[in-house]
Amino acid sequence: MPDPVPRPITRLIEEFGRLPTIGPKTAQRLAFFLLRAPSSQVAALGSAVNDLREHVVTCSRCGNFADHDPCIICCDSARDQQLLCVVEDPLDLLAIERSGGFNGIYHVLHGVVAPLDGIGPDELELPALAERVRCESIREVIVATNASIEGDATASYISTTLDLGSVPVTRLARGLARGGDIEYVDAATIAMALEGRSRVSDSRSNGA
Amino acid sequence: MPDPVPRPITRLIEEFGRLPTIGPKTAQRLAFFLLRAPSSQVAALGSAVNDLREHVVTCSRCGNFADHDPCIICCDSARDQQLLCVVEDPLDLLAIERSGGFNGIYHVLHGVVAPLDGIGPDELELPALAERVRCESIREVIVATNASIEGDATASYISTTLDLGSVPVTRLARGLARGGDIEYVDAATIAMALEGRSRVSDSRSNGA
Repeated sequence: MPDPVPRPITRLIEEFGRLPTIGPKTAQRLAFFLLRAPSSQVAALGSAVNDLREHVVTCSRCGNFADHDPCIICCDSARDQQLLCVVEDPLDLLAIERSGGFNGIYHVLHGVVAPLDGIGPDELELPALAERVRCESIREVIVATNASIEGDATASYISTTLDLGSVPVTRLARGLARGGDIEYVDAATIAMALEGRSRVSDSRSNGA
Repeated sequence: MPDPVPRPITRLIEEFGRLPTIGPKTAQRLAFFLLRAPSSQVAALGSAVNDLREHVVTCSRCGNFADHDPCIICCDSARDQQLLCVVEDPLDLLAIERSGGFNGIYHVLHGVVAPLDGIGPDELELPALAERVRCESIREVIVATNASIEGDATASYISTTLDLGSVPVTRLARGLARGGDIEYVDAATIAMALEGRSRVSDSRSNGA
């Protein structure tokens, strides 16, 4: 029996299905939704997909995706150009920007050290990081990799193996999330929160 | 502070976010995934979206989406052209086709009677259904609307108000799903399963 679904629909279902977090049922639902959506919406999605790569560049300094090279963060003289935050990918950069808690510049690694997946330091922007630290008179490197095994290994590689001269390397604090209910927090996080405890007066001065 | 996300990326995030089941975080993740995906994949998605509406038609007989008008189901002489199954939308048709349990033809309503949303019988393909039943010497109309209030109201409208002559109108059985664990089945379904109970020998002859 021939497939009752027209070829253009199955093609779109297949393409949606290749995206992360989208399973076959969702892909099907999205395609059929677009068949009934206003054609202006379909055209807008199509052109947004097609224009994406054409108009986005990678900043040659920090590695973030940008409209122009260098990006607006690297060009912003109001930011502290000697305080460098290292992130795994642009989405992490975005999350830190949205927190409003950082006013320095970034270095995007585009990945983490993961020997089991064959990703060593040279596959990432780590040599470029060492070079930037040397050339841009960086005052402090804040490693903001994820709190995962790979993220920790990458942080450790940066602070011990990478030659950053005498520039101090710090990493994000570990502990309870805001509103965290100790009863439900995992054991490893509680252990880290205990280890990183601070005097109540210190917390106050940090604005906590 | 200017937004650190380039405009082509926010445009795509916005368009993904207008699709059903895709929240802001997923939309963001999909856009950044495509920034790193092979350009062939991005181009394939873009052209699949753009080609969708250009190459898909609505079958003028049954209302299903199709490559050609009439669709391959309506043209298939191996199918029982006198047994008509009424569905709410093309995804329901697809689910029934994939069940392998039906070899007749379809009529797609593109919605259900929902007075609270201002959708009356004339907004749907119900007049067209009545005309088809009259002209195509249909033997039986199987109403396969969802087991919801609107689906039931639509089934009831078709069987009591719509003028289908003396053609019998049936609807899908209600009861336990295959593998259904009675302990976890909701009360309304158990009540319907009790009401629609059949003799054990009957079930056997139905291949259950």
